[in-house]
Amino acid sequence: MLVSGRGSNLRALLEAERQSDYPAQVVAVATNRAGCPALALARERQLASRSFPISEYGGSLERRDQEMAAWLLGRGARLLVLAGYDRILTDPLLSAFPQRILNLHNSLLPAFAGTMHAVEEALAHGVKITGCTVHLVAPELVDGGPIVLQAAVEVRDDDTSASLLERIHQQEWRILPEAVRLLSLDQLRMDGRRVVRVAS
Amino acid sequence: MLVSGRGSNLRALLEAERQSDYPAQVVAVATNRAGCPALALARERQLASRSFPISEYGGSLERRDQEMAAWLLGRGARLLVLAGYDRILTDPLLSAFPQRILNLHNSLLPAFAGTMHAVEEALAHGVKITGCTVHLVAPELVDGGPIVLQAAVEVRDDDTSASLLERIHQQEWRILPEAVRLLSLDQLRMDGRRVVRVAS
Repeated sequence: MLVSGRGSNLRALLEAERQSDYPAQVVAVATNRAGCPALALARERQLASRSFPISEYGGSLERRDQEMAAWLLGRGARLLVLAGYDRILTDPLLSAFPQRILNLHNSLLPAFAGTMHAVEEALAHGVKITGCTVHLVAPELVDGGPIVLQAAVEVRDDDTSASLLERIHQQEWRILPEAVRLLSLDQLRMDGRRVVRVAS
Repeated sequence: MLVSGRGSNLRALLEAERQSDYPAQVVAVATNRAGCPALALARERQLASRSFPISEYGGSLERRDQEMAAWLLGRGARLLVLAGYDRILTDPLLSAFPQRILNLHNSLLPAFAGTMHAVEEALAHGVKITGCTVHLVAPELVDGGPIVLQAAVEVRDDDTSASLLERIHQQEWRILPEAVRLLSLDQLRMDGRRVVRVAS
């Protein structure tokens, strides 16, 4: 798992793991931000965790991603979850987990793609419904990979970006563990760009 | 009201009118397509109705829209509803109903804007949630005017564009009469691009 933020999605996955039939487990947590609360949470839960500050790789995203990929694979990771991770992935990570990288975006893609400020933009645009998306990461498609799950969230007249984001998070904590479950159980198939479920 | 299609949204508005406290009434139905079922429905219900084939205006959209606007205003229309109307509006119509034109689009705008095939495109893109939007028509913004209401519709793995469109229509028949009600009661205000409700 790659994290940059407060760790609420990591927390949601750890919560899901407590179900006896949950088929996946967080085996390693990597971050680009040594000081992020998500890393502190991983340590507190005694998960394998490590920060990879870009300064240690002479500013090279590729070299950093190469190290991250090797470290994650070495911990037994078989799928990669990006949860609030705020850097693009380069080829070493993309190649290490082909069709096995899940990303969260806090809008109903394809609306408000390619921005770190999707909630603010949705609010300013005046949409009445927004939400969140879990999608597979495809090379060269920013926020454009095949969609696994989405959840809708109603915008209220008195919403601020903070209050709206909070309700979107609550849906993320539901659909991210569910997407990890489906991918772990190999219950997803591609039909063109559509991701459909099959019995495993 | 401007129509081009089968008239299901006209039917939904006429249904809403049967509520004793519904504040609006369809007073006139105009179409660009003389043979459309929506026009036949308007006649059957003995509503003022008229077709304005472009051929009668030497192919000029502006001249046609000028005639339409005069005819609609002459019937007492105070707001204009586009429901399945498949031509862009030109200035004579836009000017006749400033901030008083509602359009339906069968996606959650801004996703899948500017297309007559939003349902097919949403399905091909693989979204898990789509829906419909009622928005105010703003000059020069195709499908881009301020959003009044939206409704979300889940996409199922076995959906065809026909089955998905049918469920979207059911939401349209709910939110279009509601948007007409709010606009008629003067309960909508602009806050930037956001449309918010106020007590009238």
